[in-house]
Amino acid sequence: MNQLELMNKLSIPGKTKMVLMVMDGVGGLPGPDGLTELEAAHTPNLDALAKKSVVGLSTPVRPGVIPGSGPGHVGLFGYDPIEWQVGRGVLEALGIDFDLGPNDLAARGNFATVDANGDILDRRAGRIPTETGARLVEKLRQIKLPGVETFVEVVKEYRFVLVLRGEGLADGLTETDPQMTGVPSLPVEALRPEAERSAELLNMWLAEARKLLADEPKANSMNLRGIAKVPPIPKMNDIYKMKLGAIATYPMYCGIGRLVGMDVLPTGDTIASEVETLKKHWDECDFFFFHVKKTDSYGEDGNFDAKVHVIEEADAALAEILALNPDVVLISGDHSTPWALKAHSWHEVPVLLWSKYVRPDDVEAFGERPCMHGGLGHIRHYDMVPLMMANAGRLTKFGA
Amino acid sequence: MNQLELMNKLSIPGKTKMVLMVMDGVGGLPGPDGLTELEAAHTPNLDALAKKSVVGLSTPVRPGVIPGSGPGHVGLFGYDPIEWQVGRGVLEALGIDFDLGPNDLAARGNFATVDANGDILDRRAGRIPTETGARLVEKLRQIKLPGVETFVEVVKEYRFVLVLRGEGLADGLTETDPQMTGVPSLPVEALRPEAERSAELLNMWLAEARKLLADEPKANSMNLRGIAKVPPIPKMNDIYKMKLGAIATYPMYCGIGRLVGMDVLPTGDTIASEVETLKKHWDECDFFFFHVKKTDSYGEDGNFDAKVHVIEEADAALAEILALNPDVVLISGDHSTPWALKAHSWHEVPVLLWSKYVRPDDVEAFGERPCMHGGLGHIRHYDMVPLMMANAGRLTKFGA
Repeated sequence: MNQLELMNKLSIPGKTKMVLMVMDGVGGLPGPDGLTELEAAHTPNLDALAKKSVVGLSTPVRPGVIPGSGPGHVGLFGYDPIEWQVGRGVLEALGIDFDLGPNDLAARGNFATVDANGDILDRRAGRIPTETGARLVEKLRQIKLPGVETFVEVVKEYRFVLVLRGEGLADGLTETDPQMTGVPSLPVEALRPEAERSAELLNMWLAEARKLLADEPKANSMNLRGIAKVPPIPKMNDIYKMKLGAIATYPMYCGIGRLVGMDVLPTGDTIASEVETLKKHWDECDFFFFHVKKTDSYGEDGNFDAKVHVIEEADAALAEILALNPDVVLISGDHSTPWALKAHSWHEVPVLLWSKYVRPDDVEAFGERPCMHGGLGHIRHYDMVPLMMANAGRLTKFGA
Repeated sequence: MNQLELMNKLSIPGKTKMVLMVMDGVGGLPGPDGLTELEAAHTPNLDALAKKSVVGLSTPVRPGVIPGSGPGHVGLFGYDPIEWQVGRGVLEALGIDFDLGPNDLAARGNFATVDANGDILDRRAGRIPTETGARLVEKLRQIKLPGVETFVEVVKEYRFVLVLRGEGLADGLTETDPQMTGVPSLPVEALRPEAERSAELLNMWLAEARKLLADEPKANSMNLRGIAKVPPIPKMNDIYKMKLGAIATYPMYCGIGRLVGMDVLPTGDTIASEVETLKKHWDECDFFFFHVKKTDSYGEDGNFDAKVHVIEEADAALAEILALNPDVVLISGDHSTPWALKAHSWHEVPVLLWSKYVRPDDVEAFGERPCMHGGLGHIRHYDMVPLMMANAGRLTKFGA
């Protein structure tokens, strides 16, 4: 019996409410004063909650592994991200709010420039502006393939999404991008027999697409990457017998939530609007995924102060969340994005778990170093939802 | 190679003596003064030992999972309780000291009341007294089935155990209790082809049994639950090449010990009598499982003070155990039973490991919060026996 089967067997419905607050990329590294972003932030609400909570550090995927946003969230939602991999094409489609179904095969597309021999000159087509990309996408929508529907959607600049929809499509396909210039694009190849028809259809589409764009000076070709179907991931609403709501300002996080069985609760662009959404839908769901994006964005920018400021905003939001009287609150991040690295990193992520039934430790503030002494010790991301469920009184005893 | 195969490969016989002291349900939650049951108890012997030991916290099954007594002990004995599940029928039979063999199929039985249509009126037959149950069991012993022996045994009130003994019996069978009144009992159904004959025999038995009890006003029917065989669990005496003794005041714990290859050492009703048993058999065994029951019972009652008192009794017993000069002592529990929850819980269990060769940490008392800072960190129950074996000098090097 794997963990999801076990949780499915043990979960029971209830009336308790759980909030999973995710500060994207919250984990950091010491800044100019020797404190991390989270340690430097003035967070009276997080610290007061930490005093009554049990805290620790969590590894999103495996020690040393740097998680993308997909694996980070898949882990937070209780799945082993190694077992449940979400392809780049799928994430890209979710990121533009494209509603992927089980018969969809999605690819991330990059416009490219090639010479007369078809050798790649620029893998990003001179980073054409989004409007140019949109015009090209419009052209590509003419292409028809036998037996499947096709969707081509703008993402940003030279990036687009291609989705084939139909029975019998399969993933297990190679990418066309050779990752260098001066050579031609590769054909899509099937890595397993079930994917052969999909490879054939994608190669047909590519041939047509290149014909249609032959006269475009900057974007006369394209590559397809991360060609993937939605994984047949068991849904959290089924596993845990509850209703879940996703609150996030960026479509990709809503999309991952939808992928695992959450209802997407419409919200605005700010943490304040997310809090309003939470209040509005409080009675409707058992479990809320509350996503704070900009901790990650400023971490990627290497902007220590701005990341600190977002954490302080999240701290203020926490007070409003607690005023709703949730039964269980877990605060963590999908991964670390330390200002010093300007990128996602492998570092463990601080985690705080509060309920009436936690066994509080003696940690008095929420930060990376305090969490090293926390009573939770070192956990994995996929342990969080089971711990929340137990604290919510929604797991029955295992065995007699 | 799984853990048991590894241990089997590495284990060597020796002359060292190990004691695994299990305070059932010892893990707790803060009480009126902010201390847990274990922290509040006056335990000079445990604390003195903790100073020379390495301590930590252990998860019995998986984070968030609330263990039954079966999985808790299976874990303590070095098995992954997810992999080695012991059915309720088996535990119930072990609980009345029924000596189950490999050809036995055991079910927990509940007497029930049904109306003229066979619809259930009371799933517990008005909680008839044990004497009435015994009279009914006597009647049911008349039933003969083709090719198998049958045993019917009183448990308590409306509960009994049914065991079929014979070649070719298999588990993988559904329960008959529909878990509601106003509907008839379900037939036993085979979940796999090997179990079809067993289902047929049990349904024959049920038909006969209901005929025999047709005139009983309160208990004219019954249901069978948790129909299971003893799992083909590798025995500890074989794996670790040693002789093990189980000392427990309740038959079920002796039964689980016997299931994993321990000799049951007869004892009385008190911790003091268990200590006498340990002394008497000290020369006979390499490994002693010493079970203290009432920490759990008082936890289930929500009785903080009484649980504290049992821990203090166990502390006094520890002094006598140490006087026997064991080489390795491990003290823990099968799971937590915090007074505040009045039930088994998912919380980690404190663990203390002493031998001449442990690397002592700086923890000076045995309690949940001190154990959060212990040198063992956070382990799983199935790690304990390997650590005891290593400390006992009974494991050879792995690899050259």
